[in-house]
Amino acid sequence: MTLGTWSSDTPFPEALADAARLVDAALDRLLAVPPGPEARVFEAMRYSALAPGKRLRPFLVLASSHLFTVQRRSALQVACAIEMVHAYSLVHDDLPAMDDSDLRRGRPTCHKKFDEATAVLAGDGLLTFAFEVLAHPDTHGDPAVRCELVSALAQAAGAHGMVGGQMIDLLAENDRSLDIGAITRLQRLKTGALIAFACEAGAILAKAAPELRQALRGYAHDLGLAFQIADDLLDVEGNSEQTGKPTGSDAAAGKATFVSILGVERARAQAQLLVRQAVAHLDPFEERAELLRSAARFVVDRRA
Amino acid sequence: MTLGTWSSDTPFPEALADAARLVDAALDRLLAVPPGPEARVFEAMRYSALAPGKRLRPFLVLASSHLFTVQRRSALQVACAIEMVHAYSLVHDDLPAMDDSDLRRGRPTCHKKFDEATAVLAGDGLLTFAFEVLAHPDTHGDPAVRCELVSALAQAAGAHGMVGGQMIDLLAENDRSLDIGAITRLQRLKTGALIAFACEAGAILAKAAPELRQALRGYAHDLGLAFQIADDLLDVEGNSEQTGKPTGSDAAAGKATFVSILGVERARAQAQLLVRQAVAHLDPFEERAELLRSAARFVVDRRA
Repeated sequence: MTLGTWSSDTPFPEALADAARLVDAALDRLLAVPPGPEARVFEAMRYSALAPGKRLRPFLVLASSHLFTVQRRSALQVACAIEMVHAYSLVHDDLPAMDDSDLRRGRPTCHKKFDEATAVLAGDGLLTFAFEVLAHPDTHGDPAVRCELVSALAQAAGAHGMVGGQMIDLLAENDRSLDIGAITRLQRLKTGALIAFACEAGAILAKAAPELRQALRGYAHDLGLAFQIADDLLDVEGNSEQTGKPTGSDAAAGKATFVSILGVERARAQAQLLVRQAVAHLDPFEERAELLRSAARFVVDRRA
Repeated sequence: MTLGTWSSDTPFPEALADAARLVDAALDRLLAVPPGPEARVFEAMRYSALAPGKRLRPFLVLASSHLFTVQRRSALQVACAIEMVHAYSLVHDDLPAMDDSDLRRGRPTCHKKFDEATAVLAGDGLLTFAFEVLAHPDTHGDPAVRCELVSALAQAAGAHGMVGGQMIDLLAENDRSLDIGAITRLQRLKTGALIAFACEAGAILAKAAPELRQALRGYAHDLGLAFQIADDLLDVEGNSEQTGKPTGSDAAAGKATFVSILGVERARAQAQLLVRQAVAHLDPFEERAELLRSAARFVVDRRA
């Protein structure tokens, strides 16, 4: 297991690339295209789930699993499930009725590459398959653990989590009156909940003590917000060639963001504070959590 | 438990109405609207899941559970999950990019009542919540049973089942060259898989012997096809006031159906044959299966 060779000295970029390689190979295996005319929806699912990306969420699953004694196969199954849910959310968000995006990371979005109906179905198929993967015996020998994963992912991704956050985001468009509390809650639901699940996954798989799971939840909470503030900063300051989207798109859309409310300097300071808080939550794990600490720093220092 | 009062003499329409009342009350409880702006997506989820309908799939869950010793609460949880998946599939199917339907049973479809983005999210929310409900301890005391339910529903609803069937259906539009084998497969995936899950649910909840589960699968297979042929016949012969959609819509859309291939007479004979086959699968359950036998007859005799 590549994860088995991760140590407190493993450079973060190397571990991130490891995770991406492992999860892409596993996704490629899981998303085999069957014969028959339904192949088209599988092609669209593969196009979206295997699209270029950092694979940050799968990395967080593998890195949180690395804190404990978790089988590589278990961690990879969960990493694939979460990446499928992330991919489905992007496919549906990009639809004309939602954000109406033609490009993502320089490639045509799913409905541009295929068509809208296929994109709706590909998202539905990825979301559904994520739960099938979690419930599969390969994910864990103990069905109680598999149920807890299904339950936690459904809560994170559903209307009380990511779907609810997306609903709020759509309603908030062109609404510059949102205060910092409302934006924090929106982001906690829209992106934070799934990131929190990724970070807790290792603890669930390891049946870890509640206080360790709580520590990971605290880490994830601060990491998720730092991630979003960094995103907002990139939208203002980023290089569009690196981020793959035009700079200033939030301001052009009239969106209230952490940066539009706090200003660049205070937003940057807030992101740094959140990273320090996130890192502090990891103290109980000592040097085994070094990769998660690096991940937190990466999230605010990244350029894309 | 109302189900507890079901006997071999209970008239089928009464049992169907019982099931609808029970599952609607349970859905109403599960789909509580939270405070906060995300309330809108919950309103849309409720609008769709609690829309008028026969609740045939929930009935099949309760009736198959009635064959065994299954707690009412367990059966209702599964009935709610399957109705949520059915409702999500209708919401997404009705979208402009898919079937582009403005009305369903005389009411505006979800995207007409709300908007397209909300409808996409409401479908996503219902699908996700179905898995949360199945994984919840209320569904069954044994997590292995809950995992089996999650797995079976995901397989029935996903790209190897309902989503795949919907993909084939979209590709087959305006294709009159489909033969009876291709249409049978399309319908087995698009509507048959979810009906089969509903019929097997009782056996899964009761940890029934494999041969009893197999008998229910056989029943469901024939029932699902009979159901679809009856639907095609209603499209040709039905009263649009009763069915809620214009008569002849399949022919107008250039769709190959069981009726366009077999003709009305042979299609009706085929449906009756399938009902007799479905009923024969129920022999091992003796008089306890009387409601499922009535359901099979109802499916081909219904007028809407």
